[in-house]
Amino acid sequence: MNYCQMRLEKIRDWMSQEGISLVMFEDTEGRRDTTIRWLTGHPGDALLFLSPDKSLLVPWDIILAKLYARSDFVIPYNDFNRLPKMAIKGAVEKLGIPYGSRIEIPSVTSYPDFLDYISEMPEFDIICREKSTASHALNLRMIKDAEEIAIIRKAAGITNKIIDLLEKNVRSGKIKTEADAAIFIELESRKQGCEGTGFETLAAGPDRSFGIHAFPAWTAAPFAGQGLSILDFGLRLAGYNTDVTLTFVREPNAQQQKMANLVEKAVKLAAECLVNGNETIHLAQTVDALFAKSRKRMVHGLGHGIGLDAHEYPFIRNRAGSEWVLEPGMFFSLEPGVYDPVHGGCRLENDYLMTETGYETLTEARIIWL
Amino acid sequence: MNYCQMRLEKIRDWMSQEGISLVMFEDTEGRRDTTIRWLTGHPGDALLFLSPDKSLLVPWDIILAKLYARSDFVIPYNDFNRLPKMAIKGAVEKLGIPYGSRIEIPSVTSYPDFLDYISEMPEFDIICREKSTASHALNLRMIKDAEEIAIIRKAAGITNKIIDLLEKNVRSGKIKTEADAAIFIELESRKQGCEGTGFETLAAGPDRSFGIHAFPAWTAAPFAGQGLSILDFGLRLAGYNTDVTLTFVREPNAQQQKMANLVEKAVKLAAECLVNGNETIHLAQTVDALFAKSRKRMVHGLGHGIGLDAHEYPFIRNRAGSEWVLEPGMFFSLEPGVYDPVHGGCRLENDYLMTETGYETLTEARIIWL
Repeated sequence: MNYCQMRLEKIRDWMSQEGISLVMFEDTEGRRDTTIRWLTGHPGDALLFLSPDKSLLVPWDIILAKLYARSDFVIPYNDFNRLPKMAIKGAVEKLGIPYGSRIEIPSVTSYPDFLDYISEMPEFDIICREKSTASHALNLRMIKDAEEIAIIRKAAGITNKIIDLLEKNVRSGKIKTEADAAIFIELESRKQGCEGTGFETLAAGPDRSFGIHAFPAWTAAPFAGQGLSILDFGLRLAGYNTDVTLTFVREPNAQQQKMANLVEKAVKLAAECLVNGNETIHLAQTVDALFAKSRKRMVHGLGHGIGLDAHEYPFIRNRAGSEWVLEPGMFFSLEPGVYDPVHGGCRLENDYLMTETGYETLTEARIIWL
Repeated sequence: MNYCQMRLEKIRDWMSQEGISLVMFEDTEGRRDTTIRWLTGHPGDALLFLSPDKSLLVPWDIILAKLYARSDFVIPYNDFNRLPKMAIKGAVEKLGIPYGSRIEIPSVTSYPDFLDYISEMPEFDIICREKSTASHALNLRMIKDAEEIAIIRKAAGITNKIIDLLEKNVRSGKIKTEADAAIFIELESRKQGCEGTGFETLAAGPDRSFGIHAFPAWTAAPFAGQGLSILDFGLRLAGYNTDVTLTFVREPNAQQQKMANLVEKAVKLAAECLVNGNETIHLAQTVDALFAKSRKRMVHGLGHGIGLDAHEYPFIRNRAGSEWVLEPGMFFSLEPGVYDPVHGGCRLENDYLMTETGYETLTEARIIWL
């Protein structure tokens, strides 16, 4: 049994427990859901329908699906005029779903769309809920399986190689601008076999590092001059992401020195809390308390799960409703940062894998003192 | 009165007509809505609340907001623990919205979230509907104003300069790989003052051009060798996008020659239909009929509006519910394409602006015969 089949089994266990006869996943513009790739290998726009024993993939690009997708049936989205409401009716027919069955649509389905579904399919019990099969899949995806961990380790290894080269090239003066850094990562990631970067690289020299996410993401401006420069990037290998942030520090003033020290301290403190059974919110609260002591404030979450999405469960943040418990197989980043409109910003982000005995830091991002 | 104010006036006219006292816009990960930038200039993650006379922006990055945003009030998202449901309560208080008022939340709000809103704010009439203020804004945004048209013309001019350079560099052999082409666009766009590319460049050499959207988007593979190579890219200038696709043809076989001829013919035929008052679906049907005559099928839409989003209203496609009527100020692409698993793909995409007297083709993408 391959990994996709093992994942499908888990989804079907849930479906049976919940009395669901058909579930629909949607991965289209504005409604991304990489669970379709997780279950079928198909990396592009598609709908996926699962019954208790069969799967039907409805891809936008049928040629791509023939190369990548594992599914019992494949029908081009075009055959349904690229309309989800037509496709779901087609799936009911193709998979032989009996009248009166419980059909689950994605929890992100808008309220107006939900009304349409129920009025168009009165013969079925259409459900749309927060704790859906799709969100159950996101919970399952938190715990990476052996195939995923192997890919993630490889992706982290490439990320580390690129971090070392970035440091070398900044020190030697080969990388002088934000563009130099961003382009280097784009090219090197592909040379190393990655699909590319998982999100737009954020390269911000001292004049622009005050932004949590620099805007624009990178420019032709100088990088790594006096002060604080932030470089936030991730690689995507066979669908799986890494996410790291380096800060380059040159001739810091007293404020900048303090900011960098605080961030390094925060990373160490957070790592000490990486113990199976600990609540993620506890990590975030611990770091928030450290920041408060320095009369600073973390203006973003402390970290987030990583996998087929650059941001996925668990979220590590100090917010009601963000309760997760650390478990072996979880893969996530921690990224404490501090930002000042005058002195710029400093962030340090690495990726951690929880293991049976503790944790491993898979990436080697660091504050680089020039 | 500046353009943002004129746009706000239009939104408020609608609000008053619909009896809405507070409207919420959301531009966050997974729920992008560039209408916030259109109304306030703020380019990053944020919520925006409008009452009949005041606006409240709730940005994730307060430092960025201070640089870009025009809004009566600005409160950091952090003050609401980065929770939309806390922020809306804060907005009600800050903007003095009376109990019993009609409050509109985005039409993309999921059904489970909608239930939460109504149960958490029973004192208000919370509405979530397809024909929302947010979708009304998308309709207004279809007709570009003078400020937008000026930016779009400039963006198209830069796009054309880059198209010429791409042709020159492919002919001279300076661009040999997909990566060469993609990186050239990334760098050149920034040199010319753009924020960057509006979406990930798709560069597919002859071995990969069969994909509608090549996967991965670009690699180190050869580009512009024997057969069909597709290059689909767009620039973003001050938030506004262009979107063009070139096909490079070298030593085509009979099939490839036919495909390229068909696409060129489709572009001409579609352009003949660009007459104010024509229905966009009519354009798509006309081109579909041409493809059918050649026993081919267009597997994607014919075109789409462009603006702050790379894909926005009007959509030009042969599908029920896609009825728009061409009007002066509309800016959109037309992109007929044909794909074959053996012979590769060919697509040609340009951007058109409807004017009082007809239309202008703002971009100069072409099939380049090498």
